[in-house]
Amino acid sequence: MPIRLINITGTGKYLPDKIVPSQELDAKLGKPNGWVQNKSGVSKRYFASQHETTSFMATQAAKEALKKAAISPEELDCIIGACGVMEQPIPCTATLVHKQLGLEKSGISAFDINSTCLSFLSALDIASYMIDAKRFRNVLIVSSDIPSLGLNWNHMESCTIFGDGAAATILSSPTEKQETRILSSRLETYSEGSSYCQVQAGGTKLHPSRFMEDLSEYALFEMDGKAAYKLTASVIDDFVGRLFKDTKLTLDDMDWVIPHQASLLAMHHLRKKLGVPEEKLIDIFSTHGNQVAASIPTAFHEAFLTNKIRSGDKILLIGTGAGVSLGGMILEYNQ
Amino acid sequence: MPIRLINITGTGKYLPDKIVPSQELDAKLGKPNGWVQNKSGVSKRYFASQHETTSFMATQAAKEALKKAAISPEELDCIIGACGVMEQPIPCTATLVHKQLGLEKSGISAFDINSTCLSFLSALDIASYMIDAKRFRNVLIVSSDIPSLGLNWNHMESCTIFGDGAAATILSSPTEKQETRILSSRLETYSEGSSYCQVQAGGTKLHPSRFMEDLSEYALFEMDGKAAYKLTASVIDDFVGRLFKDTKLTLDDMDWVIPHQASLLAMHHLRKKLGVPEEKLIDIFSTHGNQVAASIPTAFHEAFLTNKIRSGDKILLIGTGAGVSLGGMILEYNQ
Repeated sequence: MPIRLINITGTGKYLPDKIVPSQELDAKLGKPNGWVQNKSGVSKRYFASQHETTSFMATQAAKEALKKAAISPEELDCIIGACGVMEQPIPCTATLVHKQLGLEKSGISAFDINSTCLSFLSALDIASYMIDAKRFRNVLIVSSDIPSLGLNWNHMESCTIFGDGAAATILSSPTEKQETRILSSRLETYSEGSSYCQVQAGGTKLHPSRFMEDLSEYALFEMDGKAAYKLTASVIDDFVGRLFKDTKLTLDDMDWVIPHQASLLAMHHLRKKLGVPEEKLIDIFSTHGNQVAASIPTAFHEAFLTNKIRSGDKILLIGTGAGVSLGGMILEYNQ
Repeated sequence: MPIRLINITGTGKYLPDKIVPSQELDAKLGKPNGWVQNKSGVSKRYFASQHETTSFMATQAAKEALKKAAISPEELDCIIGACGVMEQPIPCTATLVHKQLGLEKSGISAFDINSTCLSFLSALDIASYMIDAKRFRNVLIVSSDIPSLGLNWNHMESCTIFGDGAAATILSSPTEKQETRILSSRLETYSEGSSYCQVQAGGTKLHPSRFMEDLSEYALFEMDGKAAYKLTASVIDDFVGRLFKDTKLTLDDMDWVIPHQASLLAMHHLRKKLGVPEEKLIDIFSTHGNQVAASIPTAFHEAFLTNKIRSGDKILLIGTGAGVSLGGMILEYNQ
């Protein structure tokens, strides 16, 4: 596994204006007070209003990250949209963010990468090679998702855990002093679970020009949490073994573990299975919910914001997503 | 621009069973015999039937490419879905192909890259860095599209030119003798044209849980061909200049030019503007139509199939797509 050198120069996030406390969902679902919070482990999440589109939220997060990186949008070489679900089938979401950043005439390249909840990890992985090889100097990765649109309010396990939001990360060329090292990264896909987490309608599979019936129920998120958990549990130990192989590091060497904020149970199992001390885990689930692709970069941003991450720290980013896929990255942060 | 070394070991394509001659569209559109062919420059195209899903077509093309590369699916390290429009919003299309290739339990990584008609070029560009850095040995890129689902039969300019299909390409690690050199590659996005080519419904923008009216007309492809052409024409010379800069090559040094098969007019303008001799242009438009992301890799495959491309040849891949984006790659093929 080739080590890559990058520089993480800025992060940002955006949360919708509308806060949805779990009590509000108790009322909506006809449940006693405290039921949703108790079941989901989420005390509040945020739901996007109509003007808070995928690209709008991504753009707000990007502006914060650009400010932190102290560069102008024009200094970017590339914008990668790394969302769970695109804003529209054509063009890619990165193009819409490109426009809202005032880059209409810039020619700065824009494309999307998708591995659902792991899109940010895939984008970071891919972009690191392009920065390391000196193709790009500054890359913006945006992850923005609106799972509230696709909630099935009859499926208690999923409708209680999701929240909307966006996060942005700026990767830049390393300098002598600022050189974050990506020591290992992996994405593994087990497609026997391809239907365990899915949204069926929106692309070519169930297109309204061919299927005349109402497709709205197929535009909702379907999840077989048990099956996804079982599959993940059966492969995660070996996955982590392969991720650490060749690094001469172990999980104990990690200063921080930043997981995908999948669910209370998934994060609990991950922590127990890998033996991660609670104080090393970046856990924003109870105040954000599962934000699909925005979860990992939002947690990453929060860890920077609260000054938890220090120069020299070793960080594990890890998560599971639709596919079923497992993703992980080990990096040594230097600033 | 760092040069990257790869090895193109296999290509394949799939065309749907149903051939649609232009006379059939003449009848459908109530036009005189010959009108569609005359207007569009397409004599026939292929339309996918219900069983010929995006992932099914991609899988058939992948099987041909794997056979040509003489490797089994299990020898792949990564599958990249590089379609114009995904099969379903979740999970990514690469995962669905992964499953149909019998790789359910393999852990081989799968993700999508999207820059609409230029998705293949973006995927090739990105994968080349990962192969050059020895992250991956064998990468499968699949591009599969079903534009026939999104045709607006009242918009003569667009409904007459599209065709369905898929293509696959296997990239492998270079060997001493087989070393294809990517000399330059660029993607430039001009998002002032983000609405010139679009499909609005299918993602979060117009979601059925928020918009109660019939969204089927928004699931159709909208194109302002004139505006897209005007924007492209204003930037293409400079784009090509930047693409060739640092290569010490000129367009005259190219043995083959493989353009996106956008439209008769677009290809004619490209050829004239860049001064490409007709015999150097790989033109499959009249028998395939515009196959969105599948166009460039299908034309690439056809050029190999007809033994046009020889070892040592210099090839320009070039195209425009929704965004509006321009993409290009200069490679020296060695086999």
